[in-house]
Amino acid sequence: MTRIPVSILGATGTVGQKFVRLLDGHPWFEVVALAASEHSAGKRYGDVVRWREPVPIPAHLADLVIRPCAVPLEGTIAFSALDNSVAGTVERAFAAAGKFVVTNASHHRMHPLVPLVVPEINADHLGLLAKQRATERWTGAVVANPNCTTIGLVLALAPLHQAFGVTKLVVSTMQAISGSGYPGVPSLDILGNVIPFISHEEEKVEAETRKILGTLGDFVADAPIAVSAHTNRVPVIDGHTETVSVALGERVTPEQAAAVWRAWTGRAEARELPSTPKEIVAVDERPDRPQPRLDIERGRGMTVTVGRVRPCPVFDLRFVLLSHNTVRGAAGAAIQNAELLVAQGIVSR
Amino acid sequence: MTRIPVSILGATGTVGQKFVRLLDGHPWFEVVALAASEHSAGKRYGDVVRWREPVPIPAHLADLVIRPCAVPLEGTIAFSALDNSVAGTVERAFAAAGKFVVTNASHHRMHPLVPLVVPEINADHLGLLAKQRATERWTGAVVANPNCTTIGLVLALAPLHQAFGVTKLVVSTMQAISGSGYPGVPSLDILGNVIPFISHEEEKVEAETRKILGTLGDFVADAPIAVSAHTNRVPVIDGHTETVSVALGERVTPEQAAAVWRAWTGRAEARELPSTPKEIVAVDERPDRPQPRLDIERGRGMTVTVGRVRPCPVFDLRFVLLSHNTVRGAAGAAIQNAELLVAQGIVSR
Amino acid sequence: MTRIPVSILGATGTVGQKFVRLLDGHPWFEVVALAASEHSAGKRYGDVVRWREPVPIPAHLADLVIRPCAVPLEGTIAFSALDNSVAGTVERAFAAAGKFVVTNASHHRMHPLVPLVVPEINADHLGLLAKQRATERWTGAVVANPNCTTIGLVLALAPLHQAFGVTKLVVSTMQAISGSGYPGVPSLDILGNVIPFISHEEEKVEAETRKILGTLGDFVADAPIAVSAHTNRVPVIDGHTETVSVALGERVTPEQAAAVWRAWTGRAEARELPSTPKEIVAVDERPDRPQPRLDIERGRGMTVTVGRVRPCPVFDLRFVLLSHNTVRGAAGAAIQNAELLVAQGIVSR
Amino acid sequence: MTRIPVSILGATGTVGQKFVRLLDGHPWFEVVALAASEHSAGKRYGDVVRWREPVPIPAHLADLVIRPCAVPLEGTIAFSALDNSVAGTVERAFAAAGKFVVTNASHHRMHPLVPLVVPEINADHLGLLAKQRATERWTGAVVANPNCTTIGLVLALAPLHQAFGVTKLVVSTMQAISGSGYPGVPSLDILGNVIPFISHEEEKVEAETRKILGTLGDFVADAPIAVSAHTNRVPVIDGHTETVSVALGERVTPEQAAAVWRAWTGRAEARELPSTPKEIVAVDERPDRPQPRLDIERGRGMTVTVGRVRPCPVFDLRFVLLSHNTVRGAAGAAIQNAELLVAQGIVSR
Repeated sequence: MTRIPVSILGATGTVGQKFVRLLDGHPWFEVVALAASEHSAGKRYGDVVRWREPVPIPAHLADLVIRPCAVPLEGTIAFSALDNSVAGTVERAFAAAGKFVVTNASHHRMHPLVPLVVPEINADHLGLLAKQRATERWTGAVVANPNCTTIGLVLALAPLHQAFGVTKLVVSTMQAISGSGYPGVPSLDILGNVIPFISHEEEKVEAETRKILGTLGDFVADAPIAVSAHTNRVPVIDGHTETVSVALGERVTPEQAAAVWRAWTGRAEARELPSTPKEIVAVDERPDRPQPRLDIERGRGMTVTVGRVRPCPVFDLRFVLLSHNTVRGAAGAAIQNAELLVAQGIVSR
Repeated sequence: MTRIPVSILGATGTVGQKFVRLLDGHPWFEVVALAASEHSAGKRYGDVVRWREPVPIPAHLADLVIRPCAVPLEGTIAFSALDNSVAGTVERAFAAAGKFVVTNASHHRMHPLVPLVVPEINADHLGLLAKQRATERWTGAVVANPNCTTIGLVLALAPLHQAFGVTKLVVSTMQAISGSGYPGVPSLDILGNVIPFISHEEEKVEAETRKILGTLGDFVADAPIAVSAHTNRVPVIDGHTETVSVALGERVTPEQAAAVWRAWTGRAEARELPSTPKEIVAVDERPDRPQPRLDIERGRGMTVTVGRVRPCPVFDLRFVLLSHNTVRGAAGAAIQNAELLVAQGIVSR
Repeated sequence: MTRIPVSILGATGTVGQKFVRLLDGHPWFEVVALAASEHSAGKRYGDVVRWREPVPIPAHLADLVIRPCAVPLEGTIAFSALDNSVAGTVERAFAAAGKFVVTNASHHRMHPLVPLVVPEINADHLGLLAKQRATERWTGAVVANPNCTTIGLVLALAPLHQAFGVTKLVVSTMQAISGSGYPGVPSLDILGNVIPFISHEEEKVEAETRKILGTLGDFVADAPIAVSAHTNRVPVIDGHTETVSVALGERVTPEQAAAVWRAWTGRAEARELPSTPKEIVAVDERPDRPQPRLDIERGRGMTVTVGRVRPCPVFDLRFVLLSHNTVRGAAGAAIQNAELLVAQGIVSR
Repeated sequence: MTRIPVSILGATGTVGQKFVRLLDGHPWFEVVALAASEHSAGKRYGDVVRWREPVPIPAHLADLVIRPCAVPLEGTIAFSALDNSVAGTVERAFAAAGKFVVTNASHHRMHPLVPLVVPEINADHLGLLAKQRATERWTGAVVANPNCTTIGLVLALAPLHQAFGVTKLVVSTMQAISGSGYPGVPSLDILGNVIPFISHEEEKVEAETRKILGTLGDFVADAPIAVSAHTNRVPVIDGHTETVSVALGERVTPEQAAAVWRAWTGRAEARELPSTPKEIVAVDERPDRPQPRLDIERGRGMTVTVGRVRPCPVFDLRFVLLSHNTVRGAAGAAIQNAELLVAQGIVSR
């Protein structure tokens, strides 16, 4: 099988680098273009990128000349790791030019015509694309994945929601610094410290959770779940840890919840995608797990780990979850969405 | 005025050292004896202690010979920083021998005859002492202060509870490593990591909160508040940060809550104690505060800082609080309790 | 006595903030003007500064309106915490306008007419000022203090050099992130990491050491010492630790060296300055000291601590030193230099 | 080919776990026995080990019942990760019982009959074994690998020593906490701190370097190199960084040194061993490399990375090196030594 040509927009940033790394050797996709700001365009990728991954840059990509983030650009699919300040305009231009834009930027996530997709949960939301393309008169399309904090949360919630109905929840996060990109958080702010604030993060978690767990009709009707998020930055490199207290439609024991998570295989459309992990939600029964340093690599960074499942004195259940914020929470999520587009025949091989 | 002679039980540990430091130059108390395990007894304090405070050991205490944790021992008041494994037996022996034991150990906290006191909140709970002394036939007494995580929480809750009634809450903590003593948390466990579990901590926070906010009758009747705690360790030296979502008896705006906190002066009995801070609860309006590295020293470590006060989509109010876990949460709390005993005439000058 | 009015150039940065904090309550100086970039000028200091000190901004300074870094400006002495990109031009303009510029910037340090002064070591180098003022036709003057890494090193070396003669040395540093200002080092670069490179730092240490320990004639003749520096960044907030192997003019035992350090009182001119510590070089005999988290506050941050003094198998002596990089290594050093100017009558009270 | 059965002594510790992980899937060796202290013996490995590797325990080993560290024990080769307190006795008993003990413990390293081997440098030192076995009347043998700090240093020095002759050097280290095992360094000691002391480490580096670079005659004659080591602990998880100033037998440019390192393939005996990396010493020309977080995995943890090669104002050359302290510096080194024993026919397949 010939691999589908793809480009990466915003290829020099932290998430852009993660795209480069995760797409290296991908069975379906081949990176043919790297695009970045005007400042970098025209230069060799290996000379410009401040490479932060602990493996070398794939040699053939290091030699690519960076392109500006504009059409025309090679590649059927464009992975967007753009800053929000430019993502809207650029992504629309690409979609208009016939590209399938799979974006990690937040700009389009809450747009009513843009599906916000986690394949195991709501692959069917791709149904929005027909209306999106007709309305916008695009020959391409835009598909978004959620915020890095939302995605771990919704993957832990979805099985519970399907089995018991989630009605409300309080989530408090301890988020890794890589979520803020590079240079991102100054070391003087975070070394030996906690920053109990991440700009716009709580709003994103609350709104995106309802959309992803919502129901597709003409548009997506939000799930009627009250979400209260507290988002915090802690001195961890990779991996967002979240504590969750959740009210369900019925009384549920920790054992029942664990059984539901373990049995959960997600939507059929997601099952054969290369990036879908064997275990979507792992339940770790050790008393002090999950921990970011030890558990984020589970399922090559695509598995969400749940632990400390116990009754909640205020709601029904409480637990801790962990997900890899730059894999499952960013580049890996977008790549899985692109795989879904291919598997569903929306992008043809 | 002659200062009251006091001893420190468990003087070589982290909290013991904090007692030594905070009592240096105290206007009412004078350290006359340092006690520790049999292993250290008989040796010079300065030779045995692995001193971790960033100021020198007070010279006259460095030269003291360590005593075993047993009566007879000089001192009217005995500050206990003992391990729970021995605290029960030792503290009872001291109380029986006429000492006023002011303990930071958790052993006696939930005992129905032992007042669990934060002077600004429940100085009146000292009323239990008459029954305690009669029942136990002690000429001394035992008074406890709460766990380092509980104390910040109850100080933030008490003003709200008095003004509006607290009915339930979810709290998620990010706790400093100093809370675990020395050697405490191995660096391989916590560097660049989060440990989402602290043994018995959640149970303590939940039970102690209800007792402290409870009502004194024959015994203390717990406050009818449902508390759900998630306790986590993060790589911070000093300072416990807690995110709180709280349900109140009525709808309250962040501005109303801030006004209540700022106006709160606590119980009259606490006001003139040397360790009571001018601001008991400070409200910091900067969007990303409080932060442990920048804010724990407020009120010489005795002020609790509240920030990010905002409506809660699930309950009524949510906010972040910070308190100094080894000052307000340990040695400082016990010293303030001892001051209360003196001010109330229970210990005579 | 009336206090001498002083200004701070670059008052919003990390070092500028340290000047503000250290000058609060200074017995000789009173801050009357705060200057910063055009971007901040005209705004209230408290509104613009991203204050990073763990104590509040002195209230009367928080209310000052920031001035541009240009003459005319109130104040007899101007403390410069300017970026090197502008320091040269601004400092010259101030000196020409009659201000005594006491600078922490590196721009002028190696200028042959600018004394590079550590009062305890080379207060006499102020003798350059007469020639500086005549040559430049300045009614003011420029005096510099060394780089934050150099100053700890030369304070440890000076007593040895005076007693035994230092001929060569290898120094390897472990430097705090505060040395890089704010935002400075990205957390993704330094959390759980070492960066074995600090731009231009090794050249500064090598050149400045020879100038400070040099001899004043018409100009300063460098001390004939071969210096090899390795400079590294480590995840420490404050405090530069340095390992030193040094060749001396004669064989010296660790005990002899310790005795020399302890007896060293530095130049007479420095002794009565408010910022000169009682112990200039402290020798700590504990086997694992000095450590930045425990020892930087010695002498209110102005004492250099030496430890692990032992014979060197390659040279004569080896040891570890620690100094507070933003106090002794920056703002404190400049303030002490300004005190020297006053004590020497160069700035009149 | 049948794999050679091996055991791991001290299998529950940090280095023991690294042996378990690195031997999983090894082409020549198969773990058949895990041994640990009496306290753990008789229990299931997976139940007892506090597993710290970020991948799961190989399933078939998790189920093994732990054996005491005593003969008889299955396995031709015994990898020793024992504490020094017991290593001497146990290792001798195993060698006497016919086992080939490949040890990471320091006990036997400086014994004149024990080869201290880094295959690429001194595979020929295995020549000591004949005398060892005759003298001790052992049917087995003991072979040691160096200390985790020494091994990076000697791998960087060996090519220079062979090309130009190393005569003296000053090395200053920044060592990872994993080098201290588990629980190892308390977090209160190292978070945001530097500890400028590691017990006995400097002596080991100095003595072992001379032995490894020494010449085999009847015994090993130490290389006549003066070594001055400063060893420091920093808050890094894995990877020892070392700054080195070195005197050579002739003037050498950084370019010449880099060429020598790059061309160096080590001793022929080491070349085909499974653990020998393709690049033994990598030269990284980026100005701020090597860095532990980014560069330790080079050559699956077996490559030593050298950077910042530049002239030394005191000696001839200075540079920074990095090696993975628990792979190249411990378990990986021992496994490579065992491979050498097999390749040399000392252990028969």
